[in-house]
Amino acid sequence: MLKSIGVVVEGLPKEGARPASRYLYISRIRIFDEYAEGLRGLEDYSHIFVIYYLHEVKEAELVVRPWGRGPAVGIFATRFPPRPNPIGVAAVELVAVRGAELLVRGLDAWTGTPVLDVKPLDFYDVVKSPRIPEWAREEWCRHKAERKYHEVAPWLGPADDGCGGA
Amino acid sequence: MLKSIGVVVEGLPKEGARPASRYLYISRIRIFDEYAEGLRGLEDYSHIFVIYYLHEVKEAELVVRPWGRGPAVGIFATRFPPRPNPIGVAAVELVAVRGAELLVRGLDAWTGTPVLDVKPLDFYDVVKSPRIPEWAREEWCRHKAERKYHEVAPWLGPADDGCGGA
Repeated sequence: MLKSIGVVVEGLPKEGARPASRYLYISRIRIFDEYAEGLRGLEDYSHIFVIYYLHEVKEAELVVRPWGRGPAVGIFATRFPPRPNPIGVAAVELVAVRGAELLVRGLDAWTGTPVLDVKPLDFYDVVKSPRIPEWAREEWCRHKAERKYHEVAPWLGPADDGCGGA
Repeated sequence: MLKSIGVVVEGLPKEGARPASRYLYISRIRIFDEYAEGLRGLEDYSHIFVIYYLHEVKEAELVVRPWGRGPAVGIFATRFPPRPNPIGVAAVELVAVRGAELLVRGLDAWTGTPVLDVKPLDFYDVVKSPRIPEWAREEWCRHKAERKYHEVAPWLGPADDGCGGA
Protein backbone atom coordinates (compact mmCIF):
# COMPACT_ATOMS: atom_id res chain seq x y z
CA MET A 1 0.00 0.00 0.00
CA LEU A 2 3.01 2.32 0.38
CA LYS A 3 5.60 3.25 -2.23
CA SER A 4 8.74 5.34 -2.34
CA ILE A 5 8.33 8.94 -3.47
CA GLY A 6 12.08 9.44 -3.48
CA VAL A 7 15.37 8.25 -2.11
CA VAL A 8 18.22 9.52 0.02
CA VAL A 9 20.93 9.76 -2.64
CA GLU A 10 23.53 11.15 -0.26
CA GLY A 11 22.96 10.28 3.37
CA LEU A 12 25.03 9.05 6.25
CA PRO A 13 27.55 6.46 5.09
CA LYS A 14 26.64 2.99 6.23
CA GLU A 15 30.27 2.02 6.53
CA GLY A 16 33.39 4.00 7.19
CA ALA A 17 33.73 7.35 8.89
CA ARG A 18 30.51 8.98 10.01
CA PRO A 19 30.33 12.68 10.76
CA ALA A 20 30.58 13.58 14.45
CA SER A 21 26.97 14.74 14.32
CA ARG A 22 24.14 14.38 11.86
CA TYR A 23 23.76 18.15 12.14
CA LEU A 24 27.15 18.60 10.54
CA TYR A 25 26.03 16.70 7.49
CA ILE A 26 23.90 17.85 4.57
CA SER A 27 21.92 15.00 3.06
CA ARG A 28 20.55 15.01 -0.44
CA ILE A 29 17.11 13.61 -1.20
CA ARG A 30 15.90 13.01 -4.73
CA ILE A 31 12.13 13.13 -5.18
CA PHE A 32 11.06 11.10 -8.19
CA ASP A 33 10.00 13.16 -11.21
CA GLU A 34 6.38 12.02 -11.09
CA TYR A 35 5.99 13.63 -7.63
CA ALA A 36 8.19 16.70 -8.11
CA GLU A 37 5.21 19.01 -8.63
CA GLY A 38 4.19 18.24 -5.06
CA LEU A 39 7.19 20.20 -3.79
CA ARG A 40 5.84 23.57 -4.93
CA GLY A 41 6.08 26.05 -2.07
CA LEU A 42 8.05 23.78 0.25
CA GLU A 43 10.98 26.23 0.18
CA ASP A 44 8.91 28.68 2.24
CA TYR A 45 9.46 26.43 5.27
CA SER A 46 12.73 26.43 7.17
CA HIS A 47 12.21 22.89 8.49
CA ILE A 48 10.46 19.77 7.30
CA PHE A 49 9.69 16.26 8.43
CA VAL A 50 11.17 13.50 6.35
CA ILE A 51 9.24 10.23 6.63
CA TYR A 52 11.37 7.31 5.52
CA TYR A 53 11.42 3.57 5.43
CA LEU A 54 13.98 1.84 7.65
CA HIS A 55 14.59 -0.68 4.93
CA GLU A 56 17.35 -2.61 6.70
CA VAL A 57 15.19 -3.67 9.64
CA LYS A 58 14.59 -7.40 9.42
CA GLU A 59 12.70 -8.10 12.61
CA ALA A 60 10.88 -6.07 15.24
CA GLU A 61 11.95 -5.96 18.89
CA LEU A 62 9.39 -4.84 21.44
CA VAL A 63 11.82 -4.07 24.26
CA VAL A 64 15.20 -2.46 23.65
CA ARG A 65 18.03 -0.99 25.69
CA PRO A 66 19.03 2.35 24.14
CA TRP A 67 22.77 2.47 23.40
CA GLY A 68 23.22 -0.53 25.68
CA ARG A 69 23.29 1.65 28.77
CA GLY A 70 19.79 3.09 29.26
CA PRO A 71 17.03 1.17 30.98
CA ALA A 72 15.13 -1.51 29.04
CA VAL A 73 12.17 0.29 27.49
CA GLY A 74 9.47 -0.42 24.95
CA ILE A 75 10.29 0.19 21.31
CA PHE A 76 7.52 2.84 21.14
CA ALA A 77 9.28 4.75 23.92
CA THR A 78 12.38 5.07 21.70
CA ARG A 79 13.21 6.13 18.17
CA PHE A 80 15.17 2.94 17.57
CA PRO A 81 14.70 1.26 14.18
CA PRO A 82 13.47 -2.29 14.92
CA ARG A 83 9.81 -1.22 15.10
CA PRO A 84 6.79 -3.26 14.04
CA ASN A 85 6.44 -0.73 11.20
CA PRO A 86 9.97 0.45 10.44
CA ILE A 87 9.09 4.06 9.65
CA GLY A 88 11.46 6.89 10.56
CA VAL A 89 10.42 10.48 11.15
CA ALA A 90 13.08 13.20 11.31
CA ALA A 91 12.72 16.93 11.87
CA VAL A 92 15.39 18.47 9.64
CA GLU A 93 16.49 21.86 8.40
CA LEU A 94 15.60 22.45 4.77
CA VAL A 95 18.79 23.96 3.44
CA ALA A 96 17.72 24.20 -0.22
CA VAL A 97 15.28 22.95 -2.81
CA ARG A 98 16.91 22.43 -6.19
CA GLY A 99 14.33 21.21 -8.64
CA ALA A 100 13.37 17.76 -7.42
CA GLU A 101 16.23 17.60 -4.92
CA LEU A 102 16.13 18.56 -1.28
CA LEU A 103 19.22 19.41 0.73
CA VAL A 104 18.57 18.87 4.43
CA ARG A 105 20.57 19.06 7.62
CA GLY A 106 19.95 16.63 10.49
CA LEU A 107 18.69 13.54 8.69
CA ASP A 108 19.75 10.31 10.35
CA ALA A 109 19.36 8.02 7.35
CA TRP A 110 21.75 6.04 5.23
CA THR A 111 22.38 6.55 1.56
CA GLY A 112 19.79 4.50 -0.31
CA THR A 113 16.99 4.93 2.22
CA PRO A 114 13.55 5.06 0.57
CA VAL A 115 11.59 8.24 1.31
CA LEU A 116 7.85 7.83 1.91
CA ASP A 117 6.69 11.36 2.51
CA VAL A 118 7.84 14.92 3.12
CA LYS A 119 5.83 17.30 5.28
CA PRO A 120 6.32 20.91 6.30
CA LEU A 121 7.14 21.48 9.96
CA ASP A 122 4.46 23.88 11.11
CA PHE A 123 3.81 25.84 14.31
CA TYR A 124 1.44 23.00 15.28
CA ASP A 125 4.44 20.70 15.55
CA VAL A 126 6.38 22.82 18.01
CA VAL A 127 6.22 21.60 21.59
CA LYS A 128 8.08 24.28 23.50
CA SER A 129 9.39 22.22 26.41
CA PRO A 130 8.46 18.56 26.33
CA ARG A 131 9.09 16.34 29.32
CA ILE A 132 11.37 13.41 28.52
CA PRO A 133 12.80 10.65 30.73
CA GLU A 134 15.99 11.21 32.65
CA TRP A 135 18.07 8.78 30.54
CA ALA A 136 17.08 10.62 27.38
CA ARG A 137 17.74 14.02 28.94
CA GLU A 138 21.23 12.98 30.02
CA GLU A 139 22.00 11.74 26.52
CA TRP A 140 20.75 14.99 25.01
CA CYS A 141 22.80 17.14 27.37
CA ARG A 142 25.95 15.14 26.75
CA HIS A 143 25.52 15.30 22.97
CA LYS A 144 24.54 18.96 23.06
CA ALA A 145 27.78 19.89 24.81
CA GLU A 146 30.10 17.52 22.94
CA ARG A 147 28.67 18.15 19.52
CA LYS A 148 28.05 21.87 19.97
CA TYR A 149 24.41 21.84 18.92
CA HIS A 150 24.13 25.47 19.96
CA GLU A 151 26.54 26.26 17.12
CA VAL A 152 25.70 23.73 14.44
CA ALA A 153 21.92 23.60 14.96
CA PRO A 154 20.93 26.58 17.08
CA TRP A 155 17.28 26.10 16.08
CA LEU A 156 17.20 22.76 17.90
CA GLY A 157 15.91 21.88 21.34
CA PRO A 158 13.54 23.09 24.03
CA ALA A 159 13.13 26.73 25.04
CA ASP A 160 14.98 26.00 28.26
CA ASP A 161 17.83 23.82 27.00
CA GLY A 162 16.94 21.12 29.50
CA CYS A 163 20.46 20.98 30.89
CA GLY A 164 20.35 23.73 33.44
CA GLY A 165 22.46 25.96 31.18
CA ALA A 166 21.77 28.90 28.93
CA MET B 1 4.76 -4.20 4.13
CA LEU B 2 3.03 -2.10 6.79
CA LYS B 3 0.41 -3.19 9.27
CA SER B 4 -1.69 -1.56 11.98
CA ILE B 5 -0.31 -1.67 15.49
CA GLY B 6 -3.48 -0.17 16.88
CA VAL B 7 -6.53 1.90 16.09
CA VAL B 8 -8.10 5.19 17.11
CA VAL B 9 -11.10 3.87 19.03
CA GLU B 10 -12.34 7.33 19.98
CA GLY B 11 -11.24 10.09 17.65
CA LEU B 12 -12.82 13.03 15.95
CA PRO B 13 -16.32 12.18 14.75
CA LYS B 14 -16.49 11.87 10.99
CA GLU B 15 -20.03 13.16 10.91
CA GLY B 16 -21.96 15.45 13.18
CA ALA B 17 -20.62 18.06 15.56
CA ARG B 18 -16.86 18.34 15.76
CA PRO B 19 -15.15 20.00 18.69
CA ALA B 20 -14.13 23.62 18.12
CA SER B 21 -10.50 22.54 18.32
CA ARG B 22 -8.70 19.23 18.25
CA TYR B 23 -6.91 20.42 21.39
CA LEU B 24 -10.21 20.36 23.27
CA TYR B 25 -10.63 16.70 22.50
CA ILE B 26 -9.05 13.68 24.13
CA SER B 27 -8.69 10.80 21.69
CA ARG B 28 -8.31 7.20 22.72
CA ILE B 29 -5.91 4.89 20.92
CA ARG B 30 -5.93 1.15 21.46
CA ILE B 31 -2.62 -0.59 20.81
CA PHE B 32 -3.15 -4.23 19.93
CA ASP B 33 -2.21 -6.71 22.67
CA GLU B 34 0.65 -8.23 20.73
CA TYR B 35 2.46 -4.85 20.70
CA ALA B 36 1.48 -3.60 24.16
CA GLU B 37 4.87 -4.46 25.66
CA GLY B 38 6.39 -1.90 23.32
CA LEU B 39 4.72 0.89 25.32
CA ARG B 40 6.89 0.36 28.41
CA GLY B 41 8.28 3.71 29.55
CA LEU B 42 6.27 5.82 27.12
CA GLU B 43 4.50 7.52 30.05
CA ASP B 44 7.77 9.30 30.89
CA TYR B 45 7.22 11.52 27.87
CA SER B 46 4.76 14.41 27.94
CA HIS B 47 4.27 14.37 24.16
CA ILE B 48 4.40 11.77 21.41
CA PHE B 49 4.10 11.50 17.67
CA VAL B 50 1.26 9.37 16.40
CA ILE B 51 1.86 7.99 12.90
CA TYR B 52 -1.37 6.94 11.28
CA TYR B 53 -2.80 5.78 8.02
CA LEU B 54 -5.17 8.19 6.28
CA HIS B 55 -7.32 5.28 5.24
CA GLU B 56 -10.05 7.28 3.51
CA VAL B 57 -7.76 8.81 0.91
CA LYS B 58 -8.66 7.34 -2.46
CA GLU B 59 -6.41 9.26 -4.80
CA ALA B 60 -3.38 11.50 -4.49
CA GLU B 61 -3.39 15.15 -5.57
CA LEU B 62 -0.04 16.80 -6.19
CA VAL B 63 -1.25 20.41 -6.00
CA VAL B 64 -3.85 21.55 -3.49
CA ARG B 65 -5.33 24.81 -2.28
CA PRO B 66 -5.41 24.77 1.54
CA TRP B 67 -8.91 25.49 2.86
CA GLY B 68 -9.86 26.80 -0.59
CA ARG B 69 -8.34 30.20 0.17
CA GLY B 70 -4.57 29.78 0.38
CA PRO B 71 -2.34 29.76 -2.69
CA ALA B 72 -2.09 26.59 -4.78
CA VAL B 73 0.84 24.66 -3.32
CA GLY B 74 2.37 21.23 -3.63
CA ILE B 75 0.95 18.46 -1.45
CA PHE B 76 4.36 18.08 0.26
CA ALA B 77 4.16 21.73 1.31
CA THR B 78 0.95 20.98 3.23
CA ARG B 79 -0.32 18.47 5.76
CA PHE B 80 -3.38 17.71 3.65
CA PRO B 81 -4.41 14.06 3.37
CA PRO B 82 -4.39 13.23 -0.38
CA ARG B 83 -0.69 12.39 -0.41
CA PRO B 84 1.02 9.76 -2.55
CA ASN B 85 1.55 7.86 0.71
CA PRO B 86 -1.38 8.80 2.93
CA ILE B 87 0.52 8.83 6.22
CA GLY B 88 -0.37 11.30 8.96
CA VAL B 89 2.02 12.51 11.66
CA ALA B 90 0.66 14.37 14.67
CA ALA B 91 2.48 15.84 17.68
CA VAL B 92 0.09 15.26 20.57
CA GLU B 93 0.02 15.56 24.32
CA LEU B 94 0.14 12.18 26.05
CA VAL B 95 -2.53 12.58 28.72
CA ALA B 96 -2.38 9.03 30.08
CA VAL B 97 -1.29 5.49 29.37
CA ARG B 98 -3.80 2.93 30.64
CA GLY B 99 -2.53 -0.53 29.87
CA ALA B 100 -2.62 -0.79 26.10
CA GLU B 101 -4.63 2.41 25.70
CA LEU B 102 -3.26 5.89 25.10
CA LEU B 103 -5.24 9.03 25.84
CA VAL B 104 -3.93 11.91 23.75
CA ARG B 105 -4.85 15.53 23.16
CA GLY B 106 -4.47 17.13 19.75
CA LEU B 107 -4.91 14.19 17.40
CA ASP B 108 -6.61 15.12 14.15
CA ALA B 109 -7.83 11.65 13.19
CA TRP B 110 -11.23 10.06 12.86
CA THR B 111 -12.51 7.20 14.90
CA GLY B 112 -11.42 4.00 13.17
CA THR B 113 -8.12 5.35 11.86
CA PRO B 114 -5.38 2.69 11.77
CA VAL B 115 -2.29 3.55 13.82
CA LEU B 116 1.06 2.60 12.28
CA ASP B 117 3.54 3.74 14.90
CA VAL B 118 3.96 5.72 18.09
CA LYS B 119 7.17 7.60 18.85
CA PRO B 120 8.29 9.71 21.79
CA LEU B 121 8.67 13.43 21.07
CA ASP B 122 12.23 14.16 22.07
CA PHE B 123 14.32 17.33 22.38
CA TYR B 124 15.66 16.49 18.90
CA ASP B 125 12.20 17.17 17.50
CA VAL B 126 11.85 20.66 18.92
CA VAL B 127 12.45 23.42 16.39
CA LYS B 128 12.22 26.56 18.48
CA SER B 129 11.02 29.03 15.85
CA PRO B 130 10.50 27.55 12.40
CA ARG B 131 9.86 29.80 9.43
CA ILE B 132 6.56 29.07 7.72
CA PRO B 133 4.84 30.75 4.76
CA GLU B 134 2.64 33.76 5.29
CA TRP B 135 -0.62 31.95 4.48
CA ALA B 136 0.15 29.31 7.12
CA ARG B 137 1.18 31.93 9.67
CA GLU B 138 -2.08 33.85 9.19
CA GLU B 139 -4.09 30.67 9.65
CA TRP B 140 -2.16 29.81 12.83
CA CYS B 141 -2.63 33.28 14.33
CA ARG B 142 -6.34 33.30 13.56
CA HIS B 143 -6.82 29.84 15.08
CA LYS B 144 -4.60 30.62 18.03
CA ALA B 145 -6.73 33.62 18.98
CA GLU B 146 -10.15 32.12 18.19
CA ARG B 147 -9.46 28.74 19.73
CA LYS B 148 -7.47 30.00 22.69
CA TYR B 149 -4.46 27.74 22.18
CA HIS B 150 -2.64 29.62 24.94
CA GLU B 151 -5.24 28.20 27.33
CA VAL B 152 -6.06 24.78 25.92
CA ALA B 153 -2.59 23.83 24.65
CA PRO B 154 -0.08 26.21 26.24
CA TRP B 155 2.77 23.87 25.29
CA LEU B 156 2.08 24.48 21.59
CA GLY B 157 3.78 26.80 19.15
CA PRO B 158 7.02 28.69 18.59
CA ALA B 159 8.96 30.48 21.32
CA ASP B 160 7.84 33.79 19.87
CA ASP B 161 4.17 33.07 19.14
CA GLY B 162 4.63 34.19 15.55
CA CYS B 163 1.74 36.64 15.75
CA GLY B 164 3.49 39.66 17.18
CA GLY B 165 1.86 39.08 20.57
CA ALA B 166 3.01 37.67 23.87
